[in-house]
This record gives sequence, C-alpha cells and structure tokens, in this order.
Amino acid sequence: MPQNEKLASLMKEYERCKAAGLKLDMSRGKPCREQLDLSEGLLTVLHSNDQTLCDGFDVRNYGVLSGLPSMRALFADLTGIDASHIFVGGCSSLTMMYDVFARNMQFGVLPGLTPWGRQGEIFFLCPSPGYDRHFAVSECFGVKMLTVPMRADGPDMDAVEEAVKDPRVKGIWCVPKYSNPTGVTFSPETVRRFADLEPAAKDFRIFWDNAYMIHDLCDDGDELSNLYTELEKRGKTDMAYIFTSFSKVTFAGGSVAMMATGENNMAHAMKSIRCQLICSDKVNQLRHVLFFKNADAVRAHMKKHAAILRPKFEAVLNVFEKELSDIARWSHPKGGYFIDLRLPEGTARRTYELCREAGVTLTPCGATYPYGIDPEDSDLRIAPSLPPVDDLVDAAKILALCAHIACAEREAQ
Amino acid sequence: MPQNEKLASLMKEYERCKAAGLKLDMSRGKPCREQLDLSEGLLTVLHSNDQTLCDGFDVRNYGVLSGLPSMRALFADLTGIDASHIFVGGCSSLTMMYDVFARNMQFGVLPGLTPWGRQGEIFFLCPSPGYDRHFAVSECFGVKMLTVPMRADGPDMDAVEEAVKDPRVKGIWCVPKYSNPTGVTFSPETVRRFADLEPAAKDFRIFWDNAYMIHDLCDDGDELSNLYTELEKRGKTDMAYIFTSFSKVTFAGGSVAMMATGENNMAHAMKSIRCQLICSDKVNQLRHVLFFKNADAVRAHMKKHAAILRPKFEAVLNVFEKELSDIARWSHPKGGYFIDLRLPEGTARRTYELCREAGVTLTPCGATYPYGIDPEDSDLRIAPSLPPVDDLVDAAKILALCAHIACAEREAQ
Repeated sequence: MPQNEKLASLMKEYERCKAAGLKLDMSRGKPCREQLDLSEGLLTVLHSNDQTLCDGFDVRNYGVLSGLPSMRALFADLTGIDASHIFVGGCSSLTMMYDVFARNMQFGVLPGLTPWGRQGEIFFLCPSPGYDRHFAVSECFGVKMLTVPMRADGPDMDAVEEAVKDPRVKGIWCVPKYSNPTGVTFSPETVRRFADLEPAAKDFRIFWDNAYMIHDLCDDGDELSNLYTELEKRGKTDMAYIFTSFSKVTFAGGSVAMMATGENNMAHAMKSIRCQLICSDKVNQLRHVLFFKNADAVRAHMKKHAAILRPKFEAVLNVFEKELSDIARWSHPKGGYFIDLRLPEGTARRTYELCREAGVTLTPCGATYPYGIDPEDSDLRIAPSLPPVDDLVDAAKILALCAHIACAEREAQ
Repeated sequence: MPQNEKLASLMKEYERCKAAGLKLDMSRGKPCREQLDLSEGLLTVLHSNDQTLCDGFDVRNYGVLSGLPSMRALFADLTGIDASHIFVGGCSSLTMMYDVFARNMQFGVLPGLTPWGRQGEIFFLCPSPGYDRHFAVSECFGVKMLTVPMRADGPDMDAVEEAVKDPRVKGIWCVPKYSNPTGVTFSPETVRRFADLEPAAKDFRIFWDNAYMIHDLCDDGDELSNLYTELEKRGKTDMAYIFTSFSKVTFAGGSVAMMATGENNMAHAMKSIRCQLICSDKVNQLRHVLFFKNADAVRAHMKKHAAILRPKFEAVLNVFEKELSDIARWSHPKGGYFIDLRLPEGTARRTYELCREAGVTLTPCGATYPYGIDPEDSDLRIAPSLPPVDDLVDAAKILALCAHIACAEREAQ
C-alpha cells in the first residue's frame, strides 16, 4: 500500500475511534478500586480505646517523634535495615524527600557543611526516563538536572562515576527496583558501584526511593541488593537516604512512609524535624501494625495486588505484541506500576496528542525526563493499574493506532 | 518567725515531700486518657469499603491536594472563613507553620519578592510569654526574635505598630485565643489593630495560630473577632496565615490541620506543595467528617472535654489561692490548656529546680520566652490537663512550697 493510502486508511480508523467518545486514563500509577478494597481490614482493625496502647505509648497522644517502634520494626523486617536507622513519618515518602532536599538547601547536609542553597550552581543526576515528581523537587529548588541514561541493569554507572568527580554534583535520584517508568531493577553490580562511589562533594547524597520494594507482578520477581548493607560494610551509610511507603500496599496517600539513613544524617535531620513536628500520626501507624502483624503478611497481601494487576499488564502487553511489534519496543516489567513504551524517534509527542484527542489520557509526553524534555521524543509511560481490563485493551489499541499514524505522518514528511 | 527559721521549716517540709518519691508531670499540654476516649467513635465510624467515596472522590486513592471538600467545609463553618481559602493538610498545624516559614525563607513570600533567607538580618515579633514551639521555628531558621509584652487584651499593640515600621521585621507569632500560656484572648480592638497594620515590609506576615479556637473551659468562654473577615474588609487577606487543628479535639498528633490565607499566598504556596505532596490523608479527613457531621457536633464534643478539664484547672487554682496568694499571681483562663504563674522576680528557675528534685516536672523555665530566657525569671507555665486531679493537688502544693522556699532563700540573701 502506498504511504498516503496507508495514512488515509489509518486516519479513517482513527476518526471512527474518536467518534466512539471514549474516556480512558492511563496517565498515573494509581491503584484501582479492587486493590484498595483489599485493605478494608485496615478500617476496622483498630476499633476500641482498649487497643490504643502500643509499645508503652498511647498512640492517640503526642510523642514518639521517630515513629511507633512496632512500625519501625515492620519496616526493618521488610527493608533489611536495622530499626534504629529508620524514621517513620506521615503518609508521604515524597514529602520526606522534599523535606530532606529543603533541609539540605537551607541548613546544609551535615553540621558545618555549606547549605546546598549557598553554593552557587549545583547539579543533580537524573537517570532518565525517570520519575517526574523527583525531577519536580530538584527543579522547585533551582538545582540543575543532568540526565544519565538508564540501561537494562540500572543507570549508566560509567556516566555516574564520571559525573561525581565534579564537586558541584550533589546527588542522584533513584528508583532502584521496578524503576518508574522503565521497570528496571538495578543489578547487584550497579548497587555495588553505587556503594563504591567516592564523590568529590562531601555533601553528595543518593536519594534511593525504593517505592516498589515488594511490588512484584509475578512469583519470580526481581531481587534488589541491599544498598544500606553495602554502605554499612564500607562505613558510608550517610551517603544515602532510603525511602519507601505503603502507598501502593494499603491506601494511596493514606498509608505510612519511612526514611532510613546514617547516624549523622539522621541526627542532623532530627534537629529540624523536632521544630517541624510534634509527632506523626501514630494511630494510623498502629492500624498498619495490627492489620499486618509481620512482614510475611505484607508479602502475602502484595500477592493479592499482583493477582489484580497482572491481567492488566498482560492485556496491554498483548495488544502491543500484536499491533506495535513492527515499529516499537517496550518493557516487560516483573513488578511496579508502569510499562515503558519506546516509539520511533520523533513520534511520541504526536502519538500522545492523537491519543488525547481520541479520549485516551497518557502521562504527559516528556514527563519522564528532566524539564519535561525527551530529547528523542520517543518515550511514553503507560500506567495500566487503574482502568478495567476491557478499557485497557481499547486504550492500548487506540494508542497503537495513534503510534502508527504518527510514524506514517513522519515517513510522509 | 525569723527568716532563717522560716526557711528551715519550709525545707523540712520539702524533704518530707521529696522522700515521698512522687513523679508528677505538668510540663506539656497533652490531653488525658479520658479526653482521648471521647473520640472512640472516630476509630469505628469508617468501617466499610462502601463508605470510602466522598465528594465524588475515593478517599483511599491519590488526589484532592487541597483536602476533602467536606472537611474544608467543616473547618469553614468553625472558623467563619470561606472554604475556598482553606487548605486541609496532614495532622499537624505546626508542620504547616514550619513549612510556610521554610517556603518564605527559600522562595520568598510571593513571586518576585526576595526570599526571607536572602535579606540579611531579619526579625520576628514574639509576644511573650508565648508558645515555645513557635519560637523554635524562628530560631531554627536563624530569624532574630524580638519580644513584645503580652497584655490582658493581647500583645502590646503600640509596640507592634512601632516595630513594623522597620522593614526588617517580617512577621509575628500569635495564639489569639486562650494564648499559650497566658490564657489571654485578643480583644476586638487588638484584632482590629492587627488588621489595620501597615508594615514597612511588603513581605510581613501574621502567623495566627488559632489552636484553642473552640477550647472553652466554661459556658461563658471568650469571643475572638475574626481576623480574616477584618482583613477581607480591607482587601489584605494575604497579610495573615491562619492555622488550626483538631489535635486537642480528637487525637493529639493524629487529627486534621488546616491553613487559611489570601489568594496570592495560597497560589504561591500550592506551587511548592504540589512538589512536596501528592495529597494528604483523606481517609482520616473522612473519618472526621463522618464522626462530627457538622460544626455543632464539634462544639458539643468540646463541652465534654471542658467537663473533664475544668475540675483539673480548679484543683490547681484552689491550691494557688490558698498557698500562693501572698507571693504570686496567676491567670484564670476561660479556656485553653495552661495556667500562667507569675512568681516574684528571680525565683522561677529556683522554683522549677526544686520542683524537679521533688519529682514534679514543669515546662522548662524560660521556655515561654525567645531563646529560653525569661528576663525577669518569674514565669512558670502550668499544664494541668494530663494528670488526675489528686496528683494535680499534690503537685500544686509542692509547687507552692517550692515557690515559698525560693522566695525565702532570696530574701535571706
């Protein structure tokens, strides 16, 4: 079929889809209703005044700034980090990251070190494609972002090792397991190279956002090496802040988040946290402790999430397999919340726009890169968790159609 | 009785008290168990997946950055501020204040204004005695504190009006109703003068922490004029941030907090909050909405708190009346959490130390003043909410005894 005829035929099909007036959203990694329903027990498990004493504290009263010991212990079991290094805060790990960033800007990374905000131009490394909300934090504070390519085993560590020779490079954003959006889990070698880093800047910090630590989609999920243990071996635990939360375990935005870091970082952080906060919501922490009791129960709970999510990922991947094999490639994640779709260079934005006009909302094009600029205009982040399977199939087909149109248009140019 | 004999007799009594090995705490404004028990319904009111849709949102999922509309409406009813100006966040109003302060330091009060942190030496006005945690926030950010005397009708407004002529003065801390610790409620005239302020600094802001807005101890509680309404009349709503929370309504550190401010402030704040946060805990917000339903129910709930607290305040005041009338004076608050005790100059610290040695813990001496320095060494903050009445009577008697010893020692010098 000649190029113009092919495009005309695709456009005809597109107009038909558009006329159907669909409204489908694959833009954000939001859990679906069935997933949220799994945690109904969290609503009822704490039901009486008689249960409110835990670890010797009345959870309904002020106090226990570092978080309920039982909740810290649960996170310790899940992360393999000793509870003494864990701070349990409110619901949002993003808030913890922003707050660490803000403190480092304002007060410096450790006592005696010049605040990031008073060092002139400084830089953060951003493995890309990556998480838009991480990049937004750096941008909010005016810290320049440097893109580091993502590989199949994590960020390009040659590039990272080279970059940290510059003392103006102050940190790096990482989602080390089931990376947002590539689904990549950092290899043991990558984690080891992170632990081995010897940055020129004494106040260089790794922001290790282990958001999908237990979020396998299948039984043979990826294994992530323990960065904290590696750092402990080297006496360098202050080089990283490690974050995770239960946002995609229980309630999104209504769960419990934690930070782990070395002693000096923690002591320095607590000086400010003590001014910012009397205590976090221990009632909600206790609910989580009572609901799960132990780490095994959390892992069992995550298998129920996987059973709901797996068919959704498969539905999208099946459509891609059938309809996009000739022009695109994509990730086959064993966990996390995203499929990363790589389209031919220069077609992602047009595909996104065509999708939007046909009622399919995707994560804004470029969002997975610093400053929202995808240099190759080829990356789309697909979030299949929220819509029902039938909708996902429809949306994926429209996406495939739009990608073909964008390609055909480009070829016709 | 000669001075030395009197002191010897007091010390004998003191040694007897010390030997009793008491352990009593009147240091912090923590609600007691009976008060916390009043909110048992909050634990059970949200018990089913079927209840989790509110205002068209699933409270268990991400979204609704400004807070659940129903919760904003409840705060609107209680504060008399339109819901459109109200941001509902997490559990802690202190965190909201710290965060506003941090943003103003980092990003400036409004777009285009130089950040507080880049203006050299700047000042905050601190009506004193006042709330130690407010002072700690200013100190944390290195902002110099200027003491303003507290009067029976609020801060010395002549002093405030004079101080704000200096463009380096950037704000003032206020607890306008049942002030911590004096129990003073600002008079309508004081509130009007706040609204009339014309500070030299365009980025001067009033931090109006209405923590005890509905915390009457008796039926004829104080009335506070509505600062926001006064500012609206003058087109100056951006001059103030107004805070309150349910920390002493439901669970301390596990409730819901809010901030209200003018449109420009709010839009500016939201730019950063959007980077810091996906959303606050709407599950807990919904619990509060379902538990209370409306503002009248909140007010009825507060009467139950008053019934528990009133006898505790009376117990302490009765002991003071009997034992301290000759040497001290103190507040007779109609609400809030504190009694402010004024001892003869130069005796508060000694009294505090004697109490501590006898097992009675008070708020650290000087905590109610900037930098922890009470220039007259005469102020003690008494927090009667937590201990049972019998313990309070014992503690107040020991306190009275210690105050008499401190006075006698001073006279003997």
